[in-house]
Amino acid sequence: HNCTLPQPFPRNHLYCGLRMSSGPNTFSQFLDSSKLFMKNAKQWPKTVPEFHVFLNDLPGNDFNTIFRSLPAFYEDLRKQMGDGFDPNCLVTGVAGSFYTRLFPSKSLHFVHSSYGLHWISQVPDGIEDNEGNIYVSRTSPPTVVEAYYEQYERDFVTFLKHRSKEMVKGGRMILTMLGRKNEDIYSKGCHYVLEPLAMALKELVVMGLLEEEKLNSFNIPIYNPSPAEVKYIVEKEGSFT
Amino acid sequence: HNCTLPQPFPRNHLYCGLRMSSGPNTFSQFLDSSKLFMKNAKQWPKTVPEFHVFLNDLPGNDFNTIFRSLPAFYEDLRKQMGDGFDPNCLVTGVAGSFYTRLFPSKSLHFVHSSYGLHWISQVPDGIEDNEGNIYVSRTSPPTVVEAYYEQYERDFVTFLKHRSKEMVKGGRMILTMLGRKNEDIYSKGCHYVLEPLAMALKELVVMGLLEEEKLNSFNIPIYNPSPAEVKYIVEKEGSFT
Repeated sequence: HNCTLPQPFPRNHLYCGLRMSSGPNTFSQFLDSSKLFMKNAKQWPKTVPEFHVFLNDLPGNDFNTIFRSLPAFYEDLRKQMGDGFDPNCLVTGVAGSFYTRLFPSKSLHFVHSSYGLHWISQVPDGIEDNEGNIYVSRTSPPTVVEAYYEQYERDFVTFLKHRSKEMVKGGRMILTMLGRKNEDIYSKGCHYVLEPLAMALKELVVMGLLEEEKLNSFNIPIYNPSPAEVKYIVEKEGSFT
Repeated sequence: HNCTLPQPFPRNHLYCGLRMSSGPNTFSQFLDSSKLFMKNAKQWPKTVPEFHVFLNDLPGNDFNTIFRSLPAFYEDLRKQMGDGFDPNCLVTGVAGSFYTRLFPSKSLHFVHSSYGLHWISQVPDGIEDNEGNIYVSRTSPPTVVEAYYEQYERDFVTFLKHRSKEMVKGGRMILTMLGRKNEDIYSKGCHYVLEPLAMALKELVVMGLLEEEKLNSFNIPIYNPSPAEVKYIVEKEGSFT
């Protein structure tokens, strides 16, 4: 976690969490990074920063639960910091896909995307041949693998382009996503949840409880990139190199 | 509506709607002011502004409904503006009382509070003598009137202090609230909804369907100021004079 902040210290520290969901993890994660940050900020008593946080998820996410837990979160933060230190922390919600522009230009100092970027923006076109599978599987033809990768590349490039416009010069970004360890796209590492699900669905077809066509038309909009693929796309896109 | 914007034109136009609720009016109002604004912005094709909107309400408000209507709102805005003009409009949600700090320092160019400021932060202390009433009424003793006014003044001063820190120099603010026309606190103008409600509740007590104590302990946290009171408090607080 090399996330030291750019100097000189910004007037408003703008933090941005992407694909937050509404579970208890949203705040525990944010709270951890806040505490770390505040500890540093305490050493500069004359420049107590304002901490402006954007939490982002799709418009269908349950933002109400997040917002209703905010008063307790602020209370907890104040208690944790102690010494009458007011963190001056503002949490806002932003509804929209991170594959579109979401934030004002040159406004973000720190971006954290937590287990969101393996979700691609749509099931790729041209994967009619993926019958019996719900994702890239050992029986998927190479055209399907290619279609999934291309969709991922397009989406990830879009993500990087938009964030690069939104971030300040010298800002930092941490992207956490589910990927595979090596270049073997058929490797088991990233299918360990989806393959049993596909098997269960096939079983339902055999039992006559699910139409085969429905299974064939169902594919999950996920891609698990390898480290080399991520590196390749980041370098090719160019904004963060 | 004298709401011309400060010159030189800001890079990001920050708009802030306070106490928005989640009904269909939220966006119709915002859309109207957006269109007006965009029309002007179109005349300066080289400085297309970014339009950053904070919508605020209490944490218990239904933000989900607002956020779910955003994609259609953006679509509508694009259609209304035409000519491939991208409004570059970002709508965010901020949950919290506007009697606390809500926004980053010196960030807001335009603040609009729509029918929220007559809601005070709490039922004032010291109004045990307001028996049989649920608000300032013709039978309320002067101490009750005073307690209500003092709570209003305290809250409104707090509101002005916080907003003055959050607004840029030269920013504009439109505050819409339910008030009374003159200095007669007992005038009917602002009780026309609450007096029938109080009468109905008293009727329930007479009918034995509601305990008298419950009615006596129930008071509504509203104050309807006169124009002179608003003017007095704004001038006394001093940030906006």
